Amino acid sequence: MKPLRLPQATVIGDSETDEATYQMGEKIGQILAELSFTVITGGRGGIMEAVSKGAHDNGGTVVGILPGSDLSQANPYCHIVIPTGMGHTRNALTTLAADVVVAVGGGAGTLSEITFAWLYHKPILALTGKSGWADELAGTRLDQRRIDLILPCYSLEDLQQELTQISDNFG
Amino acid sequence: MKPLRLPQATVIGDSETDEATYQMGEKIGQILAELSFTVITGGRGGIMEAVSKGAHDNGGTVVGILPGSDLSQANPYCHIVIPTGMGHTRNALTTLAADVVVAVGGGAGTLSEITFAWLYHKPILALTGKSGWADELAGTRLDQRRIDLILPCYSLEDLQQELTQISDNFG
Amino acid sequence: MKPLRLPQATVIGDSETDEATYQMGEKIGQILAELSFTVITGGRGGIMEAVSKGAHDNGGTVVGILPGSDLSQANPYCHIVIPTGMGHTRNALTTLAADVVVAVGGGAGTLSEITFAWLYHKPILALTGKSGWADELAGTRLDQRRIDLILPCYSLEDLQQELTQISDNFG
Amino acid sequence: MKPLRLPQATVIGDSETDEATYQMGEKIGQILAELSFTVITGGRGGIMEAVSKGAHDNGGTVVGILPGSDLSQANPYCHIVIPTGMGHTRNALTTLAADVVVAVGGGAGTLSEITFAWLYHKPILALTGKSGWADELAGTRLDQRRIDLILPCYSLEDLQQELTQISDNFG
Repeated sequence: MKPLRLPQATVIGDSETDEATYQMGEKIGQILAELSFTVITGGRGGIMEAVSKGAHDNGGTVVGILPGSDLSQANPYCHIVIPTGMGHTRNALTTLAADVVVAVGGGAGTLSEITFAWLYHKPILALTGKSGWADELAGTRLDQRRIDLILPCYSLEDLQQELTQISDNFG
Repeated sequence: MKPLRLPQATVIGDSETDEATYQMGEKIGQILAELSFTVITGGRGGIMEAVSKGAHDNGGTVVGILPGSDLSQANPYCHIVIPTGMGHTRNALTTLAADVVVAVGGGAGTLSEITFAWLYHKPILALTGKSGWADELAGTRLDQRRIDLILPCYSLEDLQQELTQISDNFG
Repeated sequence: MKPLRLPQATVIGDSETDEATYQMGEKIGQILAELSFTVITGGRGGIMEAVSKGAHDNGGTVVGILPGSDLSQANPYCHIVIPTGMGHTRNALTTLAADVVVAVGGGAGTLSEITFAWLYHKPILALTGKSGWADELAGTRLDQRRIDLILPCYSLEDLQQELTQISDNFG
Repeated sequence: MKPLRLPQATVIGDSETDEATYQMGEKIGQILAELSFTVITGGRGGIMEAVSKGAHDNGGTVVGILPGSDLSQANPYCHIVIPTGMGHTRNALTTLAADVVVAVGGGAGTLSEITFAWLYHKPILALTGKSGWADELAGTRLDQRRIDLILPCYSLEDLQQELTQISDNFG
């Protein structure tokens, strides 16, 4: 029997954002929901909340995988909350649940998640233009274990196109 | 803003079951779905699959938290798959995501999950009559840190009643 | 090339103890040091500290695997401190490092460690007479995956004898 | 009471190395042993083994924190073996045990460890000249949460000097 699940997209990025980036996050959530991805984030604020809100407001299902052990620490747009109680170590789990990873901006926390996505051989889409590690690493390889690149997406249209292709090939 | 999420019930028990227990598992899944719980299991076979199927077939949302790192190892009734790649250590995470834990039968793996549920101060409902650790520990305390008991449920009706109360008090 | 390491014994038990149990813990640490075991504990107080002190005072090497992320939270007798930052989930790691597990007394935390020791197929020696889960489970099996028992040791002499045999067969 | 433990240095780098880098690894192990650091690595081959050998051959104590669950998978120079059974997620734990982190060369695995070292506010010494992520990131910050740099060490003498200072200030 074939699995019932939808493709899962993990979105990673800063836990604090300016208004423009928050709105971009909402757009990403909307795109993912419209393409029928389940959206996974680290469950906290900033880009994580923005994407969660965007997906939620457009009918998507949102999962937050938390660093803490308290279900109530998730942003309010998570339909499902998975606390880990493992602190930063939870960064190793968010991308493990992904069929595709979308990175936006990002500091060291995001960098650790990009790195695990690479180690776990997950396709990584890096939205450019918001500086941070997603911008820095777009179009590069982290090491020789993979021949593909961290794929740069230069606009939301670019991102949508790549995600459409992944969605079409899923299952 | 209030969280949107539904109450989360983690069901734990044997990864291999006889037909009668499988059917009981499906009934538990149905009860949880009808009470609008999100159902969480370890994502594998036996009671985990039975409960997933029962919840799925009755409109519930099902999450599988896997010991391995491969999304495809989940039973086919999981709508969302969270691999951990942590082996037995994932047993510490399944009950951490619970608002309530339901235990049925069970060997050492289930015992470890009951124990973490206890350490994390989660309400635990133990369905009796299927032997294993759920039966053994029903009506007892694991240690003095809690004054409540692992609550015995002597029938599916009992279980339904307890879950209804938890659902009513949620949020 | 053969490994250089000594056999590793993980000791588990209550994080708070009375004076008599503390002294017994010191004795266990002494026995382990004299038999050239590296001693591993959860790194905190009670039986963990007592065993650490006993091993340290008799020339043994002591490792503490902590639930928190702060190296300074270990009891002062640990020569090596391994913080996990994973809270109760670290209970899955203490016994994984063992060639043999020694259990004394114990509440739910100790029970979780006994259970993981069982899941990981580690020999388990349960010192009786201090109540708690070690006493409760001595001489039993947690499930059918193993044919051996949680081995009861009715005295420190008993324990010493069993550990001597394991030490002799090591490597 | 003051802790008895020695300062702990975690060394991270490639699991496969050429002969020259292996010899440099042995030198690093020797330096650490002579400065009375306990040496921690990921317990496998390449730079991890070289540093372990160098420390061992010079009287140091060596700890290997393994990705797998099997104690026998460690390189033969580990005096103490801590298996995690958590795969790549163990990369979050190696640097958590550090008072100081030394990075040499390195691919994505090493990058994940540098990143966790940064998140955990550990001092990071990057030995330059062996390319890889240690070389790439030497002299930079991963994000704004810290004002110090990943400190470049341009030679083993440089490294020895920095480690001496850390050793002198320890405790």
